Amino acid sequence: MEQYMEIIGQRAKEASKIMARLSQVDKNRGLLAAAEELRKKTDYILEENKKDVDAAIQSGMKQSLVDRLQLTKERIDAMAVGLEQIAGLEDPVGEVLSMKTRPNGLRIGKKRVPLGVIGIIYESRPNVTADAFGLCFKTGNATILRGGSDAIHSNKAVTVVIKDALCKLKLPQDAMILVEDTSREMVTEMMQLREYIDVLIPRGGAGLIANVVKNSSVPVIETGTGNCHVYVDDSADLNMAADIIENAKTQRMGVCNACESLLIHSAVAEKAMPVILRRLKEHQIEVRGDERVCAGASEVIPATEEDWGREYLDAMISVKIVDSLEEAIDHINRYNTGHSETIVTENYDHALKFLDEVDAAAVYVNASTRFTDGFEFGFGAEIGISTQKLHARGPMGLEALTTTKYIIFGNGQIRE
Amino acid sequence: MEQYMEIIGQRAKEASKIMARLSQVDKNRGLLAAAEELRKKTDYILEENKKDVDAAIQSGMKQSLVDRLQLTKERIDAMAVGLEQIAGLEDPVGEVLSMKTRPNGLRIGKKRVPLGVIGIIYESRPNVTADAFGLCFKTGNATILRGGSDAIHSNKAVTVVIKDALCKLKLPQDAMILVEDTSREMVTEMMQLREYIDVLIPRGGAGLIANVVKNSSVPVIETGTGNCHVYVDDSADLNMAADIIENAKTQRMGVCNACESLLIHSAVAEKAMPVILRRLKEHQIEVRGDERVCAGASEVIPATEEDWGREYLDAMISVKIVDSLEEAIDHINRYNTGHSETIVTENYDHALKFLDEVDAAAVYVNASTRFTDGFEFGFGAEIGISTQKLHARGPMGLEALTTTKYIIFGNGQIRE
Repeated sequence: MEQYMEIIGQRAKEASKIMARLSQVDKNRGLLAAAEELRKKTDYILEENKKDVDAAIQSGMKQSLVDRLQLTKERIDAMAVGLEQIAGLEDPVGEVLSMKTRPNGLRIGKKRVPLGVIGIIYESRPNVTADAFGLCFKTGNATILRGGSDAIHSNKAVTVVIKDALCKLKLPQDAMILVEDTSREMVTEMMQLREYIDVLIPRGGAGLIANVVKNSSVPVIETGTGNCHVYVDDSADLNMAADIIENAKTQRMGVCNACESLLIHSAVAEKAMPVILRRLKEHQIEVRGDERVCAGASEVIPATEEDWGREYLDAMISVKIVDSLEEAIDHINRYNTGHSETIVTENYDHALKFLDEVDAAAVYVNASTRFTDGFEFGFGAEIGISTQKLHARGPMGLEALTTTKYIIFGNGQIRE
Repeated sequence: MEQYMEIIGQRAKEASKIMARLSQVDKNRGLLAAAEELRKKTDYILEENKKDVDAAIQSGMKQSLVDRLQLTKERIDAMAVGLEQIAGLEDPVGEVLSMKTRPNGLRIGKKRVPLGVIGIIYESRPNVTADAFGLCFKTGNATILRGGSDAIHSNKAVTVVIKDALCKLKLPQDAMILVEDTSREMVTEMMQLREYIDVLIPRGGAGLIANVVKNSSVPVIETGTGNCHVYVDDSADLNMAADIIENAKTQRMGVCNACESLLIHSAVAEKAMPVILRRLKEHQIEVRGDERVCAGASEVIPATEEDWGREYLDAMISVKIVDSLEEAIDHINRYNTGHSETIVTENYDHALKFLDEVDAAAVYVNASTRFTDGFEFGFGAEIGISTQKLHARGPMGLEALTTTKYIIFGNGQIRE
């Protein structure tokens, strides 16, 4: 049994060597063929998906989770469209980012190349299977996909269909390997396959991510958790502030770039709070406030220390009144998860100080935190949002799936 | 006891916030003051170093290791010169790498910022203490230094002297914290301090690095091991090949960018081998060859499978005859450590194919592998040579000690 993951690792590593040499044309042909095949085999995928959905319902899975698991003709078409869009993006691989000539005549260039083998560990969304394959394939990487056991029939079906398309074009089928054994032991083994896997990207809930970060000896890119703040400065345009807060909190609540906590300068609290609370109430948002917030509004629940650090992903928000920009920055740097933070201000110095001193992947002036997203940033794709500082920070597009190597052109140079 | 590392982590984290805001001028003043103080306190540092050296000699330490441990007036001056050089380098922090305006008017920029807290785990060279401090300080990071127990008096002395200099300028002393408890437990705890340490860089032997890579939940940058190859193509200029091999193997043998293995195309082996073996013999290099190499030269020892993967760091080299460029590339990709690889060739296609297909941090045509070095690459400094693919690959200069954050300028944008 121990060999199962090892063999998968070896196969992916071999495939990655072929992938690294594939031309842009071949990679795009593969992506388009996979999209076509997904559309052709829609019925088969739906049949297989039904097995997962039926089992989920029988096991009493929550309706919202069953929804995530369920595929439809439209959702399968969306997967195909996703692959076509990826095919249309510029290929970052092969670009020489700089080339300098040293005094000794050595020409030293830095070239963008694939990472090699990328492991993705995710939960029950079958669309991740096609999406992760597409992003990794485009960037010349092989992928090992370990999805949740709930979605195993769906994932197998999507994988088989995509591999069929690759096979017809004589492209390496092992560019995409699904771990069909969905036991936890396989995840544990995958996290130790440093010899074969270059990076692991966990996509899913906080528990999954924490497990991978803690236990993997393969380098990990941490994605996801967002305890995002909006700070309303004493100089804020209060209408703009209300619009941004409403948007950041309510436009979509279960996502990592939604606002979870609100800081309001005491000088404008009296004027701003009623407007903001009314807007939040329209969306049935439960407000948990500090003492001063509670004193001003009877419907507010007292916040506990724990509330300041929570990512609710739900119709809840914590609100605190602060007496200065500095207090707001300190609070954010203490409780945030390094995701997205916004100041609403008309004060030039405050805007720059906030941008300079808040420690997060994306720091905004006068805009909703909801924009932290690969598509909104113009990357055309997104593999996740990194909340760590190494390698990639913030929304990760295709470039995050590449590394560089130095290429050096000499004519006999030796070191003195 | 468990609190000891935790407190160090907290102090470093606090200092990192101040460091991130320091101006280039203040950082350079700190570095120059530290350099001056090291020169002034040379006698004190030498006294403390003598304690380490005496203990090492008493414990029967190998002379070569005692040499590495021993400081002299010149070596302390070299530390000071190093800090002055770092002060003279351009500060990468604060640069906005790109700034684009999106269709909705959001201006999205990517700004270079410090990583935060950098942990360095190293062995018995006391000069690393000053050097690592300098590189981290210049880039606005706080550093936690955990040097070997053999050098503890020297490291303490260097740290005290540098902190004195920082203190006089009212710069944050906790920008540099030496872990004075050199027990192994402290290393174990340091590797779990994910909350406070942003990246760990192990500097030292293969055992140290493997331990950190395997056991750290803090992201690690793997440095060091180099099983570097020189491949002599069938079209090589054989004099150039001999010069490059001699240089790559013998110019300095105990370093990671030295050549450890030689591949020679069979078409030129008969002509090339005698010249190359003669050159290696002049430097008393022990040659371990495959069957064909052994058949042609009586002084060659038969290589075992293990030899192909070894980083000798010594007066030894493995030599293999291959029948094609492809065989050379396959061999290298199988046995190398992803460090530095060279082809000697006059063939244009072979040069490009080698550059494309060899998987390593630095791939050379017609030059010695010994050039893989931050100074030789023109970075002005080096924190180590990364052999992993994430974040930094190859020689790491100041930029490798930074990350980026997105700074977004809006005027009320909300997401539709």
